[in-house]
Amino acid sequence: MTRFVDKISVLDRRASAMEEAEGIARDGLRMHRSSPAGAIPPGQGTGGSITLGQLFKRVGDAHNGGGEEEGVGGNDSLMNHVLEVDAFEQYHLDSRPPPPFVLTFTDLTYSVKRQQRMSLFRKNRLASDPPETEAALGRTKTLLNSISGEAREGEIFAVLGASGSGKSTLIDALANRIARESLQGSITLNGEKLEGRLLKVISAYVMQDDLLYPMLTVEETLMFSAEFRLPRSLSASKKKSRVQALIDQLGLRAAAKTIIGDEIHRGVSGGERRRVSIGMDIIHDPIVLFLDEPTSGLDSTSAFMVVKVLQRIAHSGSIVIMSVHQPSYRILRLLDRLLFLSRGQTVYSGPPDGLHSFFADFGHSIPDGENPTEFALDLIRELEGTPAGATALVQFNNSRQSRPAQSVAAKPALSLKDAISVSISRGKLVSGATEGATSSSSSSVQKHANPFWIEMGVLTKRSWTNTKRMPELFAIRLAAVLLTGFILATIFWRLDNSPKGVQERLGFFAIAMSTMFYTCADALPVFLQERNIFMRETAYNAYRRSSYVLSNAIVSFPPLVLLSIAFALTTYFAVGLAGGIQGFIFFILIVLAAFWAGSGFVTFLSGVVTHILLGYTVVVALLAYFLLFSGFFINRDRIHDYWLWFHYMSLVKYPYEAVMQNEFDDPHKCFVRGVQMFDSTPLAALPEAAKVAVLRAMGQSLGVPITASTCITTGTGILQQQSITQLSKWDCFWVTVAWGFLFRFLFYISLLIGSRNKRR
Amino acid sequence: MTRFVDKISVLDRRASAMEEAEGIARDGLRMHRSSPAGAIPPGQGTGGSITLGQLFKRVGDAHNGGGEEEGVGGNDSLMNHVLEVDAFEQYHLDSRPPPPFVLTFTDLTYSVKRQQRMSLFRKNRLASDPPETEAALGRTKTLLNSISGEAREGEIFAVLGASGSGKSTLIDALANRIARESLQGSITLNGEKLEGRLLKVISAYVMQDDLLYPMLTVEETLMFSAEFRLPRSLSASKKKSRVQALIDQLGLRAAAKTIIGDEIHRGVSGGERRRVSIGMDIIHDPIVLFLDEPTSGLDSTSAFMVVKVLQRIAHSGSIVIMSVHQPSYRILRLLDRLLFLSRGQTVYSGPPDGLHSFFADFGHSIPDGENPTEFALDLIRELEGTPAGATALVQFNNSRQSRPAQSVAAKPALSLKDAISVSISRGKLVSGATEGATSSSSSSVQKHANPFWIEMGVLTKRSWTNTKRMPELFAIRLAAVLLTGFILATIFWRLDNSPKGVQERLGFFAIAMSTMFYTCADALPVFLQERNIFMRETAYNAYRRSSYVLSNAIVSFPPLVLLSIAFALTTYFAVGLAGGIQGFIFFILIVLAAFWAGSGFVTFLSGVVTHILLGYTVVVALLAYFLLFSGFFINRDRIHDYWLWFHYMSLVKYPYEAVMQNEFDDPHKCFVRGVQMFDSTPLAALPEAAKVAVLRAMGQSLGVPITASTCITTGTGILQQQSITQLSKWDCFWVTVAWGFLFRFLFYISLLIGSRNKRR
Repeated sequence: MTRFVDKISVLDRRASAMEEAEGIARDGLRMHRSSPAGAIPPGQGTGGSITLGQLFKRVGDAHNGGGEEEGVGGNDSLMNHVLEVDAFEQYHLDSRPPPPFVLTFTDLTYSVKRQQRMSLFRKNRLASDPPETEAALGRTKTLLNSISGEAREGEIFAVLGASGSGKSTLIDALANRIARESLQGSITLNGEKLEGRLLKVISAYVMQDDLLYPMLTVEETLMFSAEFRLPRSLSASKKKSRVQALIDQLGLRAAAKTIIGDEIHRGVSGGERRRVSIGMDIIHDPIVLFLDEPTSGLDSTSAFMVVKVLQRIAHSGSIVIMSVHQPSYRILRLLDRLLFLSRGQTVYSGPPDGLHSFFADFGHSIPDGENPTEFALDLIRELEGTPAGATALVQFNNSRQSRPAQSVAAKPALSLKDAISVSISRGKLVSGATEGATSSSSSSVQKHANPFWIEMGVLTKRSWTNTKRMPELFAIRLAAVLLTGFILATIFWRLDNSPKGVQERLGFFAIAMSTMFYTCADALPVFLQERNIFMRETAYNAYRRSSYVLSNAIVSFPPLVLLSIAFALTTYFAVGLAGGIQGFIFFILIVLAAFWAGSGFVTFLSGVVTHILLGYTVVVALLAYFLLFSGFFINRDRIHDYWLWFHYMSLVKYPYEAVMQNEFDDPHKCFVRGVQMFDSTPLAALPEAAKVAVLRAMGQSLGVPITASTCITTGTGILQQQSITQLSKWDCFWVTVAWGFLFRFLFYISLLIGSRNKRR
Repeated sequence: MTRFVDKISVLDRRASAMEEAEGIARDGLRMHRSSPAGAIPPGQGTGGSITLGQLFKRVGDAHNGGGEEEGVGGNDSLMNHVLEVDAFEQYHLDSRPPPPFVLTFTDLTYSVKRQQRMSLFRKNRLASDPPETEAALGRTKTLLNSISGEAREGEIFAVLGASGSGKSTLIDALANRIARESLQGSITLNGEKLEGRLLKVISAYVMQDDLLYPMLTVEETLMFSAEFRLPRSLSASKKKSRVQALIDQLGLRAAAKTIIGDEIHRGVSGGERRRVSIGMDIIHDPIVLFLDEPTSGLDSTSAFMVVKVLQRIAHSGSIVIMSVHQPSYRILRLLDRLLFLSRGQTVYSGPPDGLHSFFADFGHSIPDGENPTEFALDLIRELEGTPAGATALVQFNNSRQSRPAQSVAAKPALSLKDAISVSISRGKLVSGATEGATSSSSSSVQKHANPFWIEMGVLTKRSWTNTKRMPELFAIRLAAVLLTGFILATIFWRLDNSPKGVQERLGFFAIAMSTMFYTCADALPVFLQERNIFMRETAYNAYRRSSYVLSNAIVSFPPLVLLSIAFALTTYFAVGLAGGIQGFIFFILIVLAAFWAGSGFVTFLSGVVTHILLGYTVVVALLAYFLLFSGFFINRDRIHDYWLWFHYMSLVKYPYEAVMQNEFDDPHKCFVRGVQMFDSTPLAALPEAAKVAVLRAMGQSLGVPITASTCITTGTGILQQQSITQLSKWDCFWVTVAWGFLFRFLFYISLLIGSRNKRR
């Protein structure tokens, strides 16, 4: 144990040394906190007469000044001094008196109407239900029942309880992830009501899942996060410094150059992955950090390391609020305040040390050596099994707490805005600080860190980096296209210009154009995986949805060009299609357009259907219907009116008609000549001479000479037979391209609708 | 804590009461252990002069005798007595002196050659590699390095260590799941070498995953397991009693009537599920029980309950050997012997109480209140991070152990066979005991508990019970078939007998026959899920692979009949197909045959491709190629020779040709009449009178009168054009049916090959 702690404190020291040495923004500020612009004397501005924007601006000025001076020359003796002390000590040295943040929540109550969960795919989106009708009343479930507590800067506040006890709900409530109108009770920071907008700037919320690009390294992952969340005004070198400092703070130095990894690619360990996830969310050094079960799924040692990192974050001047299922003994010792929940009610609230006396007084002493939280959770569970539930314990806890003062400590000396301001001047909140510097309007806190084109550039770069490290995905798609192309080329090898050859051409085109779409379906899993990352990142406004949609399209395009050329080269000449080099180029273009439309279609579906197997089934079925209605199986003039709309909606129709025209749109090219017209009639069995005689007789009857070499059906005739008469081949091409854009726009819409993530 | 233990001991008492009250086999035996046939005097038969079969037979006789007497009249006073005592006490009362089983393993060493893991889907099946060449030598990895230990009846022997330390490998080695030739060292039970065949009878191995039918209740799940693993000679009521006793032993009484559940259907909790899994494997009450991380994925309370159950099993007279990643403090107190591994080497071996002094002597005292296993694992991990690794600890452990006597206790008084015999007479090993009774040949221990037809019946019943509780799965398939049927019916509504109508019929048949196959693909996930259960169950010879394949086919058949009728009813009359009622019945039959072949095909693939998404992609792609080669897109006479083999392999070809013949095989039915022959030529634009004139001219030329009503092409003619001339429609039907059988046979073969589960 000792060794472990030693190792970590070594890391701590190294981390702080690194931060100082590389002179990142926060340290720059810290060095200059005594300069007139930077240090705001406590008390000034308390009256709330300045706006948050002005506040940020002032701090921003201080910061800029600090940056300059720092640029002129580092203070070597200070740096050496810092190298000697632990980051935690450093913090205490700096903060005399510190601006202590206290997050207080009082009587939080949250109820939901229980809904029948009959339908598998229906979402709980009935916010407009009539409130509290007689019938609904009976089904109301109280998830949080008058929960109060207090979380302090420098401490870890842990919410404990069995699954379903309300842990995550409480974290959500505090993190403003529950619609305010549904939640009763008050949440204040330093005694002032906490606005959602402000909270969003000064806090971070870390979800349970690790959603990371598998092929990026730890350093790259954090660097991209820095690009998204840190403002543009921060120089690239400072962003780098922030990332390096964070890597040390997270204890990820050894893994910095390792990729995240997935099932196939070996990457970092589960604990490291979790710490990277946390790092992504705290890149801007938030004042309040919420975590939903940060240790779930980790082995005990990794879990301990994660909580140790959280302690370090708390000590750097943050409030850390987390839910935890069942902490080990070592983790318990890192927690400062516990809140035990049972079915939405508080059963214990206080420090870990208080558990022994609490349960002893309740009449259930914790046996020696037993983990107190294990004991408590078991006792709670046992009580929950009784008819009375845990009521006795809840009441016992209430009687002991006997309504403590709203805040045990006296009201903090600083107002909230001043406290934040001082905290910023001490280096917290990298993003908020400098964002204030670039724009003095208070609404700026809501906006994205970067303008649209920067976001797009960064997103494209990230996605491209991840994609190019998985060449096997492209290789599989290419192999699928080449295999299908090879099979089609050999089965439709050098088609002749006979009635059967024409029919086979139709079949070839129908299958070939469907292949593009089916090949795109294989990309569905990748899209779905990426979509989860997107959902998480846009939840805290890391970037615009539109940038994501566009960068997604940009990154997916180059492989499609290669696939198109590969398919066209494999099939065009082998089948013997008409049109020469111009026809070939058009063939490539229409194949590319089909790929583009298909990938757009699948992208859109990945935004609507989130279950992978269901999505795959839907794609396959819809594409089959598209093929059925494309005009190949039944011509447009033969489709009943009530289905014509679907014919026009068929994605396959347009590329199919385009290649048909590319092939047949030549009034001089002949596909049925002379006696070939009898090929599909019983007359085909007659001797050649007899057929020629029949032709002659027909010609005489019509008054036109018909011989064995007379052209009966030209390409144009075939197009007319197939009712391909409405759009030119270029029309079809542009319509196909437009489908691709339309689906990407619909994808954008689906993201807008789908990514509302507040509870009602 | 106290309460918990109380609750459990209440359960214990209830369990033993239940066992006694219902008079199951083991208790029957226990009552009669002093009867001359049942009680084998210690020492008799020690010379190994009797075979195991004879041994079992003798015990079996005892058991049968016991059963009869018990039937005559229960001993009420004994029952009442038993109600008073705990099962554990009961065991100790009974077993004075007990036949103590001791499993000893000495110097177990196991190495593997490290293989490059480049390919994603390649299996590690290179047993025929040249052994220990110069290059291979460098890559050899020692998974177990001279591991010794001793596990005793009535105790839990736990193997601990980080992931990759060799825990599971050691369990596998002890459970005879590693090919003997690869494993060095000896494993003995009561000093006698343990044969694989014997071990299989007296032991059980519980895997980490819970593979259970989601829609069966806990009781049903265990009952089916009893049907498979307990011999036929055991009466149904005794099997029921055994299951009831087991439910109590596992603490599952409250959940007995609850379904297991899955993501969609709410079922039992994770801990209960794990206990059901264990219950399935110990239904025959084994003497040695191996478990690979039985607590993984469970919350601490559930994990504790599981280990508590294991303790109860150990106390009932078994050796329990398990691996565990990081036991909580409470679980640790249930373990009797620990073996800590680090990279395949022993770093500690002894009781949990010894950890404190061991590590204190090593110079790293365990701090007060710290979980000793957490401490130990962290220390090991830390040492592993140093250049020397955990060598110091390994050597320290070796020096402390200083080669203890092979077995600390004196050699047991009983020989292995006698000990097993006595154990059986005390009620252990329900299966082995009575299996011996039905057959006196010693080879009988390897066989299945039931004959083929019983297995099939039970498997069919189980699968059917599970299926019928998920009607939504069938409903989804039915909806898919009806939807496709509806779309096809409306788009091909009342096709006329014109050249275009003929072409559209071809399209309809091709799509319709492909639909059957694609619909079957949706069943792939269900098959894959079931396959995992199958793999596990056949691993311990619960039933024959052939019974499974057959029962699988039987259960899947009835829904196919309904789907076929639904599809035929939706489409046949709407499209206006020919053949009247006879044609309709044939249509149903061929649709059913297609479903049968398709489901066989998908079943077979589920046996070969185990990854669900890969499987789905392969099915969809293969079916597309089948359709391409079916003869619809390109007629058989136009397919190049090098592809003809695939045409004949195309599953879609046969049902397609069958329905084509069902429709067109009428030499009198006319599809192209008179002027219709010009429909697909430029002459179609001429006025009707002109066309008739041309026909007349043609007729004159041929010497045959041709008028507007003359039949140009009959159905037979169309079949000839399409090269559908080789097989009659009934031939096609039988070939399709045969495909279904062939795939199910191939499925059987794939199971035979795929389910070898020993390490090399």
